[in-house]
Amino acid sequence: MPNTQVNGSNITAPDDVNRTGENCAIPLMNKLSSSHDLVMKTFRLLISDLCQQFNGGHPGGAIGMAAIGVALWRYVMRYAPHSPDYFNRDRFVLSNGHACLFQYTFLHLTGYKAMTLDQLKSYHSDRVDTLCPGHPEIEHEGIEVTTGPLGQGVANAVGLAMATRHLAATYNRPGFEVVSNHTWCIVGDACLQEGVALEAISLAGHLKLNNLTIIYDNNQITCDGSVDLTNTEDVNMKLQACGWNVVSIEDGSYDVQSIVAVLEQARRSQEKPTFVNVKTIIGLGSSVEGTAVAHGVAFGAEDVAAQKRAYGFDPERSFVIDNRVRAFFGDIPTRGEEQVQKWNKLIDKYSAQYPVLGSEIRRRVRGELPQDWKALIPSEFPDRPTASRVSSGLVFNPIARFINTFMVGTADLSPSVNMMWPDKIDFQSPNLKTACGINGNYSGRYIHYGVREHAMCAISNGLAAFAPNTIVPVTSSFFMFYLYAAPAVRMGALQKLQVIHVATHDSIGMGEDGPTHQPIELAALFRAMPNLLYIRPADSEETAGAWIAAIEAKNTPSIISTSRHPLPQLKQTRRDGVMSGAYILEEPANDVIADITLIGTGAELSLALAVAENLRIEKSIKTRVVSFPCQRLFENQSSEYKRSTLKRHLGIPAVVIEPYAPNGWERYADAGFCLNRFGKSLPCKEAYRYFGYETAGVASKISAYLSRIRSKELLRGEYVDL
Amino acid sequence: MPNTQVNGSNITAPDDVNRTGENCAIPLMNKLSSSHDLVMKTFRLLISDLCQQFNGGHPGGAIGMAAIGVALWRYVMRYAPHSPDYFNRDRFVLSNGHACLFQYTFLHLTGYKAMTLDQLKSYHSDRVDTLCPGHPEIEHEGIEVTTGPLGQGVANAVGLAMATRHLAATYNRPGFEVVSNHTWCIVGDACLQEGVALEAISLAGHLKLNNLTIIYDNNQITCDGSVDLTNTEDVNMKLQACGWNVVSIEDGSYDVQSIVAVLEQARRSQEKPTFVNVKTIIGLGSSVEGTAVAHGVAFGAEDVAAQKRAYGFDPERSFVIDNRVRAFFGDIPTRGEEQVQKWNKLIDKYSAQYPVLGSEIRRRVRGELPQDWKALIPSEFPDRPTASRVSSGLVFNPIARFINTFMVGTADLSPSVNMMWPDKIDFQSPNLKTACGINGNYSGRYIHYGVREHAMCAISNGLAAFAPNTIVPVTSSFFMFYLYAAPAVRMGALQKLQVIHVATHDSIGMGEDGPTHQPIELAALFRAMPNLLYIRPADSEETAGAWIAAIEAKNTPSIISTSRHPLPQLKQTRRDGVMSGAYILEEPANDVIADITLIGTGAELSLALAVAENLRIEKSIKTRVVSFPCQRLFENQSSEYKRSTLKRHLGIPAVVIEPYAPNGWERYADAGFCLNRFGKSLPCKEAYRYFGYETAGVASKISAYLSRIRSKELLRGEYVDL
Repeated sequence: MPNTQVNGSNITAPDDVNRTGENCAIPLMNKLSSSHDLVMKTFRLLISDLCQQFNGGHPGGAIGMAAIGVALWRYVMRYAPHSPDYFNRDRFVLSNGHACLFQYTFLHLTGYKAMTLDQLKSYHSDRVDTLCPGHPEIEHEGIEVTTGPLGQGVANAVGLAMATRHLAATYNRPGFEVVSNHTWCIVGDACLQEGVALEAISLAGHLKLNNLTIIYDNNQITCDGSVDLTNTEDVNMKLQACGWNVVSIEDGSYDVQSIVAVLEQARRSQEKPTFVNVKTIIGLGSSVEGTAVAHGVAFGAEDVAAQKRAYGFDPERSFVIDNRVRAFFGDIPTRGEEQVQKWNKLIDKYSAQYPVLGSEIRRRVRGELPQDWKALIPSEFPDRPTASRVSSGLVFNPIARFINTFMVGTADLSPSVNMMWPDKIDFQSPNLKTACGINGNYSGRYIHYGVREHAMCAISNGLAAFAPNTIVPVTSSFFMFYLYAAPAVRMGALQKLQVIHVATHDSIGMGEDGPTHQPIELAALFRAMPNLLYIRPADSEETAGAWIAAIEAKNTPSIISTSRHPLPQLKQTRRDGVMSGAYILEEPANDVIADITLIGTGAELSLALAVAENLRIEKSIKTRVVSFPCQRLFENQSSEYKRSTLKRHLGIPAVVIEPYAPNGWERYADAGFCLNRFGKSLPCKEAYRYFGYETAGVASKISAYLSRIRSKELLRGEYVDL
Repeated sequence: MPNTQVNGSNITAPDDVNRTGENCAIPLMNKLSSSHDLVMKTFRLLISDLCQQFNGGHPGGAIGMAAIGVALWRYVMRYAPHSPDYFNRDRFVLSNGHACLFQYTFLHLTGYKAMTLDQLKSYHSDRVDTLCPGHPEIEHEGIEVTTGPLGQGVANAVGLAMATRHLAATYNRPGFEVVSNHTWCIVGDACLQEGVALEAISLAGHLKLNNLTIIYDNNQITCDGSVDLTNTEDVNMKLQACGWNVVSIEDGSYDVQSIVAVLEQARRSQEKPTFVNVKTIIGLGSSVEGTAVAHGVAFGAEDVAAQKRAYGFDPERSFVIDNRVRAFFGDIPTRGEEQVQKWNKLIDKYSAQYPVLGSEIRRRVRGELPQDWKALIPSEFPDRPTASRVSSGLVFNPIARFINTFMVGTADLSPSVNMMWPDKIDFQSPNLKTACGINGNYSGRYIHYGVREHAMCAISNGLAAFAPNTIVPVTSSFFMFYLYAAPAVRMGALQKLQVIHVATHDSIGMGEDGPTHQPIELAALFRAMPNLLYIRPADSEETAGAWIAAIEAKNTPSIISTSRHPLPQLKQTRRDGVMSGAYILEEPANDVIADITLIGTGAELSLALAVAENLRIEKSIKTRVVSFPCQRLFENQSSEYKRSTLKRHLGIPAVVIEPYAPNGWERYADAGFCLNRFGKSLPCKEAYRYFGYETAGVASKISAYLSRIRSKELLRGEYVDL
């Protein structure tokens, strides 16, 4: 009987684990368990050596989790080291990413080809080509998601598990379990304190993701010391309250057998995700075991030597891996390839029996959309004032409806974001029993995330990371609340994951909700964020362009930034103009050189056009107007295109009009009518008026600005706030 | 016997409520309870009318909470409408800030002078001077914190309750309960889904904040519909797992008596915060009661008229407040003034008996520091390479040690942020019983927040909001994780709260942790954020300047952005230079006009100096160097100062050197050696080398840049990435 224990008041057993299933790992374990001691000692000393060589890194957590690692990589997880991208592999997420050596070392031991011993030793080295960065990075074999910012890995894992549930519900047929993998996520004490993890845990329980297991490396130590300093809650009870199976393992340092038994049970859970609370000892075997010192510094040469002596190893030798340890993991690549071949055969048979589905899933595995997807976008739009959040629905909802690559979600703003399509089905557990009739099951592609913006975006990264472009997640909320989600938006950009964020209520025009909801400085963040497209379309036509740009950006997330209030449809806008980032809307006739360029963007482009007209008619100032929906797309253009669009090299000053912080516009404009202060609670029109965003007033300021230039009061190259 | 019920498995009673205390509100309630029906009907119709007049706003939640409001403002809360800043008042936080009409209306009814009926009617109007913005704003009488971004109010309330516990432990003496107030926080379904609230709830339970009560307006509706769409957890059990008393009230729509009884119990809790789960009905009495439609739109004229008829009111009349309703709240201002006078007398007697403490608390209530605080900062520093995170400790820890205005916390990075001082005491419950000997009680001023960055900063806003500058909270973490906290940093800036954030590991120099931890684009956000000082000091001397700037900014939060790695002490730096935002470090001798200005900042200022030297010696290029630690402080200078510092008006091009996204620097520089991509996991020096931040390489690029200018290949006013 394994030494497990179920903790927490009134928790008597993992309550929906199917106990009748076959425990496939146990016979193998009985055969191999005599090697566990040597394998774990070897592993732990490898970690000590790897940190010691460059005197840095995070040894303690990795060492503490040795038995968990043996359980996962030797017995429990289904994966193929020689086919790391095998579609139906189990997904593993190390949410406590600083313990990356744990994962790297098991990747090495189990035969991932790229992870040679030489590579393993490059941890914390100056090697630019290292596969062992300080946190796991998705680019490398065997790494499912980049982790490090704590808590997000939990949400990524939830997304990966949702991807499985969704693809399984969509494609599996009787006798054809084409998608059936499990997601395993290790968390530390810290991850369980982070809000993003708590949000994701709550949602995963609601969604009854029985194919998700969180393994809690419960060593009760964080950087500051004992977890008791900051957290004395009953974590098992909390997880049970959130709808999880909860199981505790008392001896997580050595008891591989118990861990395997519990994880195998977790894989067979019928209706809930499983939380396995494993007591471990940080830095086990070192002189600082069980303390915060073991967390983030190497142990020192003497200590490492002492560990080796205590384990019966030669203290003079480092990076020792006995042949018995090699043998212990030796058959894993073969086993993996067998799984891959079995799956390949399965998918072949499946495609024969279900040719339409088979063709579709193969296309999606290749990351492709149907070739004619753009035809779903209206070629023109009603010529009436339309909020761009409404335009966004006009453009995208036909695509979402007919192309099942897209999974669309919202952080509780369905009525505001206009992302619903006719006959949409919600992504919900089919076993959800509620008072209100909810139309949902796992084949659904509309996700109610709840008021959990950060988890929404981090979960979406997991959905996107399941396989490249197989699922394209779409999120939606008010623009302001993407600040809650910004750490996850960033991780999507860093990982080159295609996630499309639809952010409505994007200027002071959102009105009465006031300065807490008016995102004055957020565009500056997202325009500065590498590998992200922040796009502000001005009307329905530009919104079409924004969506095309976002859908074509296969390795880049996007934010499509839309208005709450109706915007006029402009004659001059072009969807293909959006793809260039900025483009000319108006020039003076007959090749006359203009006095000034007005840069407009998004909801205020129509204001820029009105100001231009006012300047022309009232002040005889020759104006040109540039629409500038996306700075990064513009940066990607040739310098010829950039100059021909802005024409500052001809001495024409440019003025940008946008009620946001100007930061970043100084690159393209000589002056700006922007905001350096927070907004105000007023109805839309009054808010614009309050801050001076009215045609005549802006025109006067620009006219005065030109006079100051002519009088040499202002100098070229000095940006001016108007 | 009030109709209360304690929910959740194994919760038999609010387990540490002191039942022997006097329930002071009940006799009064017995006298007044005949008026409840009329008062609540009047209140609910006022809400309907207020939303109907301009056809907008959030009526449903406010209407549902009428009985809670009557319980709080009539019976339970201790406050003084005519002295809204009375120091020992109870604090009230409406975390579901969109229901602000709830609060505004009770402020009106209880006699806050500024909140006239005329003002109340300005909700959603175009009045620029409204006291009724779409979310409560701290500037206005009776509002303790600005709320709106969901979940943060919970953390603010935790901060307010911590402030009370801390000031009470510091100043109260036998017979002198000079600080004894309670904090009440209302949350909606949405707040309880947000990570920041979940972090704060966990910490509040750990800290055993018995002076905090959360009232859960449990109407089971959010924007998307039933909460069952997204959340089916057992919230009571979850709160109990977090160490809270939990009590449920079944009839929250009408049963004022039960609510009062439970809240009075909560005030007398001995050892835990209290969570009161009150079942309410959103939009009660409207035709859309109990549905999401009631949340965020006016009911329509017909519906409002029908409500009036059903309540026995004249459907033709609006904003009706019967004299009996006026009388019901009539004595509250008087009662409040009595409390104020009693407290004033208490503090007089206290000052007589404890003159040192009395003088100190009065000074702190005035928001003042001891006059000689700057003398605690070393006048000079050891001339050896010092990480600026270490410099920060050298500067600030003596201040923190001797001036008890400062409460210093960390999101589990004590070993990294160097904010500890000798003999510091942790802020902990004196009743915390743990295995590890923790040196703490409520008088402690060092706060272990756990790995909860967002809650840390939102709680700090609460600490700061308790009374202006009475407590100055200091937070600390890695710079990257201020992105988790950014929504709370923003709310501090919006509310003009003095909170000082110490952000270490602030450039690619933080090294091996890699791109997940290298904050490439974060400076762009915080430089764009209104009313925030983002300061990057270059060495110990500038770090002194950064702290002086932050401490003198009484209405502005600051981020002091420091390095992990040692920085050389520079001869030319000046603490007073930091106060100007940017200042000249080097000029060519003898009034020679320079060829170029190098702008350096923070960890890379020494690189700028080295490049300047290289350019002078190797290329005979006459260089000047400007240190630029804070853009906002520089913006506050006169245009004369700005021009005389940068000298771009003399035709000298400026180049900025900073391994961050350039966004915002284009205002001050003609070219930049900045980063438009994510970082890389490498040791500090190798990371700088990898991205080209080395003296000779940068000097070459700048030299080539000057050639391109001279050849007219580049044009003035066009910003160039080098």
